Amino acid sequence: MTEGLTIGIDVGGTNLRFGVFRGNELLDSTRSEVDLREKCRQAPDPEGAAALVTTLLTEGIADLRRHHPNIARVGIAFPGFIDDDGVLLQSPNIPQLIQFDLQTAVGAACQLPVLVENDANAAGYGEFWEERQEHPELQNLLYVGLGTGVGGGWIHQGRPWRGDHGSAMEIGHIIVVPGGRRCGCGNQGCLEQYASARGVQSTYVELTGTAPDAMVIAQMAGDAHSEAASAFRMAGGYLGQVLAHVVKVTDVAVVRIGGGMSAAWDRFAPAMLQRLDADMIPALRGNVEVKRGNDDDLAGMRGAALLADQEFLHS
Amino acid sequence: MTEGLTIGIDVGGTNLRFGVFRGNELLDSTRSEVDLREKCRQAPDPEGAAALVTTLLTEGIADLRRHHPNIARVGIAFPGFIDDDGVLLQSPNIPQLIQFDLQTAVGAACQLPVLVENDANAAGYGEFWEERQEHPELQNLLYVGLGTGVGGGWIHQGRPWRGDHGSAMEIGHIIVVPGGRRCGCGNQGCLEQYASARGVQSTYVELTGTAPDAMVIAQMAGDAHSEAASAFRMAGGYLGQVLAHVVKVTDVAVVRIGGGMSAAWDRFAPAMLQRLDADMIPALRGNVEVKRGNDDDLAGMRGAALLADQEFLHS
Repeated sequence: MTEGLTIGIDVGGTNLRFGVFRGNELLDSTRSEVDLREKCRQAPDPEGAAALVTTLLTEGIADLRRHHPNIARVGIAFPGFIDDDGVLLQSPNIPQLIQFDLQTAVGAACQLPVLVENDANAAGYGEFWEERQEHPELQNLLYVGLGTGVGGGWIHQGRPWRGDHGSAMEIGHIIVVPGGRRCGCGNQGCLEQYASARGVQSTYVELTGTAPDAMVIAQMAGDAHSEAASAFRMAGGYLGQVLAHVVKVTDVAVVRIGGGMSAAWDRFAPAMLQRLDADMIPALRGNVEVKRGNDDDLAGMRGAALLADQEFLHS
Repeated sequence: MTEGLTIGIDVGGTNLRFGVFRGNELLDSTRSEVDLREKCRQAPDPEGAAALVTTLLTEGIADLRRHHPNIARVGIAFPGFIDDDGVLLQSPNIPQLIQFDLQTAVGAACQLPVLVENDANAAGYGEFWEERQEHPELQNLLYVGLGTGVGGGWIHQGRPWRGDHGSAMEIGHIIVVPGGRRCGCGNQGCLEQYASARGVQSTYVELTGTAPDAMVIAQMAGDAHSEAASAFRMAGGYLGQVLAHVVKVTDVAVVRIGGGMSAAWDRFAPAMLQRLDADMIPALRGNVEVKRGNDDDLAGMRGAALLADQEFLHS
């Protein structure tokens, strides 16, 4: 293989995942539990936080290179606003990181070509790539990542659309309840506070006073526990409302929903699809395909690797 | 001029405007009052309505060619969902027109290259072209057309973005009041019912029981008539709310607001900007420039002509 292999990295709030890919094929992977948010909070200053992230990523890359000497490039999926040069402008969940040239820092440290992409855009690209194997004419795809938060990605004419400030498809911060729950972004009533795993938990706490994990609530909802079912119905309703807004702006016909909470699809999807259908421009009803993503766990890592291939290998 | 001149046509609900352009320079123009909606309603069938539109446009083109024999191409700004081949898929305001290949029909009738674009996209392109004279690095611009209805256009990396069904930026149909006023699209509570000229009039009727023209209401609002001022404040508030949604999805930093009702800018803009600022992701406040368009009346016609130039002359 003169073309070499690609490392895809998915940086999450509580874990780092590294994969070694040949094209779409996952050859090896590692995962480490790291509370990046907490670690960065303890850093003395933004430079310290940036150095810490660079070291964590570079060490993970070095470990994999020991077993795979023909690594030729790296793609990193990172939560935050990323510009076209791979600079992390801001990360709402890791506020210590700001104006951090992650792409250059990791590239210099590991002496490989590195591409940095927003995590939801990378996961969206992973889904897009898979869809395109069956539908080669596909050009546009919206991705919604439901996890601790709610992220959005948009593959536009085959490439992630980042926007003018790296903040395109920040749909978790579309306001659905004016004056509603406080959000980490500083506003109130954002979608994320109702439709993420944490949001479902908040709803359940309001209804019952107890706070089990969202996946436990999903299980109870499946067993016809009415407050649990209500919490997921509320999440689905707000998601459908926001998807209707998004579809009216973008007019993209293919939507995929991934992330950890997409495992509870049966609990929230009926309310989501019903609300989307009700709110759609009537003449366009039936023209948008919303489905669960193929690849909940791997899409970010895989998408980052495929984007690095596209950038450094195929272009 | 071996390159010839370009006709730009703006098709409105109640009038047709034709301009002769050399590049951006308007050399001649005509305007005729035609209630296209009513005329199409009287047509015996969709083919009859399509033939009527084709004839009206072709006659206007022929009239201008008598004075300007070196017309070389035509751009048409048309209200409705337009696909990449210039087919009018649907026009919510002229429901008789459906799956109508306007571009081919007019091209065949006048034997010139013809380009058809959605009216708000064309007006957005007109605004974009002007902005770009001062800011050559500009790539992305959102346009909102406030008139009888509320339209939206998006210039994305220098070209109009139409979407998968020609319905991108249909922001007039984003729902702002669930269960609110009935909209022509079939839903209730769409932005258009509150923020268009007709929407302001409806609000004023609710408040006072009388229905003057929106421009009269704007005049009264300027004279501190409190119900008139309230009607415009409500329009501005909903516009700001929707702009916040749109900016979170697209992350476009430049927004221009045109159309006839933009003349009442001072009446609705303060409430609009206040609401947009409140709803923005706090970290991005101050990063979006919302201004009145340069060119209320000409932008559609000019944009259509410039797009035809780009398609047939420069590409």
